[in-house]
Amino acid sequence: MKKIKRALISVSNKDNLKKILSVLSQYKIQLISSGGTYKKIRKLKFNCTEISQYTGSAEILEGRVKTLHPKIYGGILSKRNNKLHKKDLLKYNFPEIDLIIVNFYPFEEILNQKNIHSKIIENIDIGGPTLVRAAAKNYNDVTVITNTNQYQNLINELKKNKGTTSLNFRQKMSEEAFSETAYYDSIISNYFNNFNNNQFPKKKIICGNLVEELRYGENPHQKSAIYSSQEKLNIKQIHGKKLSYNNYNDIFSALSISKSLPKNNGTVIIKHTNPSGVSIDSNKINSFKSALACDPISAYGGIVSCNYKINKQLALHLNKIFLEVIIANGYEKNALKILKKKKNVRLIDASNLISSKKNNYISNFNSILVQSPDNIKFDKNNFKIVSKRKPTSKQFDDLIFAFNICRSVKSNAIVIANNKSTLGIGSGQPSRLDSCNIAINKMNKFNPNKFENAVAASDAFFPFLDGVEKLVQSGISAIIQPSGSIRDKEIIKFANQTNTILVFSKTRHFKH
Amino acid sequence: MKKIKRALISVSNKDNLKKILSVLSQYKIQLISSGGTYKKIRKLKFNCTEISQYTGSAEILEGRVKTLHPKIYGGILSKRNNKLHKKDLLKYNFPEIDLIIVNFYPFEEILNQKNIHSKIIENIDIGGPTLVRAAAKNYNDVTVITNTNQYQNLINELKKNKGTTSLNFRQKMSEEAFSETAYYDSIISNYFNNFNNNQFPKKKIICGNLVEELRYGENPHQKSAIYSSQEKLNIKQIHGKKLSYNNYNDIFSALSISKSLPKNNGTVIIKHTNPSGVSIDSNKINSFKSALACDPISAYGGIVSCNYKINKQLALHLNKIFLEVIIANGYEKNALKILKKKKNVRLIDASNLISSKKNNYISNFNSILVQSPDNIKFDKNNFKIVSKRKPTSKQFDDLIFAFNICRSVKSNAIVIANNKSTLGIGSGQPSRLDSCNIAINKMNKFNPNKFENAVAASDAFFPFLDGVEKLVQSGISAIIQPSGSIRDKEIIKFANQTNTILVFSKTRHFKH
Repeated sequence: MKKIKRALISVSNKDNLKKILSVLSQYKIQLISSGGTYKKIRKLKFNCTEISQYTGSAEILEGRVKTLHPKIYGGILSKRNNKLHKKDLLKYNFPEIDLIIVNFYPFEEILNQKNIHSKIIENIDIGGPTLVRAAAKNYNDVTVITNTNQYQNLINELKKNKGTTSLNFRQKMSEEAFSETAYYDSIISNYFNNFNNNQFPKKKIICGNLVEELRYGENPHQKSAIYSSQEKLNIKQIHGKKLSYNNYNDIFSALSISKSLPKNNGTVIIKHTNPSGVSIDSNKINSFKSALACDPISAYGGIVSCNYKINKQLALHLNKIFLEVIIANGYEKNALKILKKKKNVRLIDASNLISSKKNNYISNFNSILVQSPDNIKFDKNNFKIVSKRKPTSKQFDDLIFAFNICRSVKSNAIVIANNKSTLGIGSGQPSRLDSCNIAINKMNKFNPNKFENAVAASDAFFPFLDGVEKLVQSGISAIIQPSGSIRDKEIIKFANQTNTILVFSKTRHFKH
Repeated sequence: MKKIKRALISVSNKDNLKKILSVLSQYKIQLISSGGTYKKIRKLKFNCTEISQYTGSAEILEGRVKTLHPKIYGGILSKRNNKLHKKDLLKYNFPEIDLIIVNFYPFEEILNQKNIHSKIIENIDIGGPTLVRAAAKNYNDVTVITNTNQYQNLINELKKNKGTTSLNFRQKMSEEAFSETAYYDSIISNYFNNFNNNQFPKKKIICGNLVEELRYGENPHQKSAIYSSQEKLNIKQIHGKKLSYNNYNDIFSALSISKSLPKNNGTVIIKHTNPSGVSIDSNKINSFKSALACDPISAYGGIVSCNYKINKQLALHLNKIFLEVIIANGYEKNALKILKKKKNVRLIDASNLISSKKNNYISNFNSILVQSPDNIKFDKNNFKIVSKRKPTSKQFDDLIFAFNICRSVKSNAIVIANNKSTLGIGSGQPSRLDSCNIAINKMNKFNPNKFENAVAASDAFFPFLDGVEKLVQSGISAIIQPSGSIRDKEIIKFANQTNTILVFSKTRHFKH
């Protein structure tokens, strides 16, 4: 246990300062401070020594250099049980400093508010992180507080131990202190990387704020948590059971499609991260019904994502099936009343979430694979009609729709669509032919009468003719695929022989 | 352009010091240093002022406080074009310091070598990061060098500009400096998190070293790079074309299965991150042939991963099919000679890679989902036989094998196996029944005569009887599944009626 005799306080965020000062004064802890914090402490009528007076060295460069002085760092860094250290402190009259309360210049907040580079740079704190790092290193003897939300813990600790802190407490605070300094410099480092347009720096630092620990991961024997790379996740749960890892994973899969569809027009149903149905229709009920019709069995226990506001009528339809999660860009009041009748269903408002341009990453063993998102929307201008028969405007729209959905279906992906609604989705197969068969079987099972004018999209080229043959034989009139196979010519020939429309997208949409 | 008059040097890694000192002396740059660096500079016969002499303040606490002095930080942090700053420096006789060459105490190396907590803590550098952060903040006027591999760049810059540096250069060095400090504190922060067994701290920092930029991501319109959370990736490419994003992704999928199989016994074939065949056999040729037989068509253009050393005979077999990547725990010399005949095939040695206990993470929008790996191997003791008919030892081994493979197949996953070889794998379907059909169809297509005594595993429970019915009708004699459905009783009843072996694993293996 370490009795605290002297504390250095330098805080940018001055919330709850009075509360902590009252307790420190109760234990007769001498205070050292400077600048705005010093003024605030004096205003609150507590005794305090100004740092320049304490060190005998003036504050210079408009406050850029205040605390960087051997008297301060001798006082923080000395090992209390080391005779040499003790001797040094005595010799130079450097008293021990036992408690550091510091929070940093608000670099991240400034970054979110301003875009003037010089203002942002001015908010890089130099003195603060140094005080914190020194105290955190010497946690064996020194207590470090880096966040206003730790004040109550410190107060409890001091009260429990009559003005002292335990090693356990100091170590915990040290751990959190290094989290703060690492996080702070990560934000700065990422700012510089962005500023210099350096997507892949030699050292990449990714940081996140804990949103919540989850009950478990994909499976009950895995531990899990979700973090946000910003302050918040920008999706809001407004009803229902706690979200699980798999819920979150499905929600993001759903939203990556929803956010790519025309505004206020699209419904997506997700199961196991793959869409089981997608539909665009300005009539909300029709949009939902068409998405559901693509595979009404898989939709059971799935996630429905609407990129529009849910109204009462739709809520009544949604309540007819068992859903784990409903996502929408807001809910009308009477819709919410209906949906909330089901206790467990998780209702999410995603209206604040915007499509992300950030790089995505996944980790495996000790690797991190980083890539920019697949969020470019390709259209007619990117595509080339290679068959003799040309698509009608309606067919071309459907081809673009189907190809756009492909990028959110696990590869190999085949999407059959008509009237901007999916009729069959084949996902996650090592063989493209198998994905074709799955998509065709879905269509034949649930929508056997809708194949007239139906189109198909393939996320990558057909290595053989077989998949194309199957699709055409099942009634598909138009196919879009990237091209690039040595059998492209054979496929074009077959398309012309069967009067099938064939479009080459040139781009592909693998997703794994 | 900034003429450099004065440099402060404090380096833990003293490589190539002479080289840089020669150039600095050429431009008559005054040197300040301390401790080991000072001694080394003097030994190399260059002029240098010791910091304690420069500041007039003694080095104290066995070197814990050396550079933390206003004369140093005034000299670094002053804005050269600010009159107030200039006045301060003149008043206190603090000369400008224009160049900082610092690298840190080798915290990460010490961490990898030692596990004595106090030794590790002692290697947290306080002075170094402060010098670097101050100089990096003031890059408008100051040049900061943080790594020995930047020396040549500095030399080129000084030579090009006759002893000065450009703003562009200083800004680039500043960016790299904040990368270094962020990385350094990330390693410290993660060390403390691990030390305190804190899996999910409030602020999580993930850091990586760039291994290489990749030609593109999953698709040509996506940019990509691969990072390592350690110094190296621990997999070694020894032949063939450059690895792509999709190669890496498939390699890690392959290795997560390979590393879970009995040592020196297993072959895995991967296509689009899903296994198309897996087999355990002490005979390498048989092991490969059985893995291939599960789906010889999908194996085309796939990845083969052998958790043993590849010999000549196997190399001859491997060369018969088109493979993108071959992974092995080493290659016999004459095997390598054969495999290298194919110019493009990527040969990977993964013998140094060990199964990871690290948390995995994926990002979506602004979220990071973190979870511990699904690497617990379950066996008989975890499972419960719920049918009247009991599995033979051989059947139980096959059930365990199939269930183990399930955890590496995208959900919903169904794996049919016999003699520790897969016969059919159904992956990535929203409907479990569809996954059953895919697995059965594979078996019937490629291994129509092997269903006797074949078993099936399901990664999660059957919500309906239909999937179980299909499997039994196709000739499957034993099924393992987690249980937990409201139809469990119905399924047990059906198993008993059809004399099928049914085992409840209690655990599940979702993977998305």
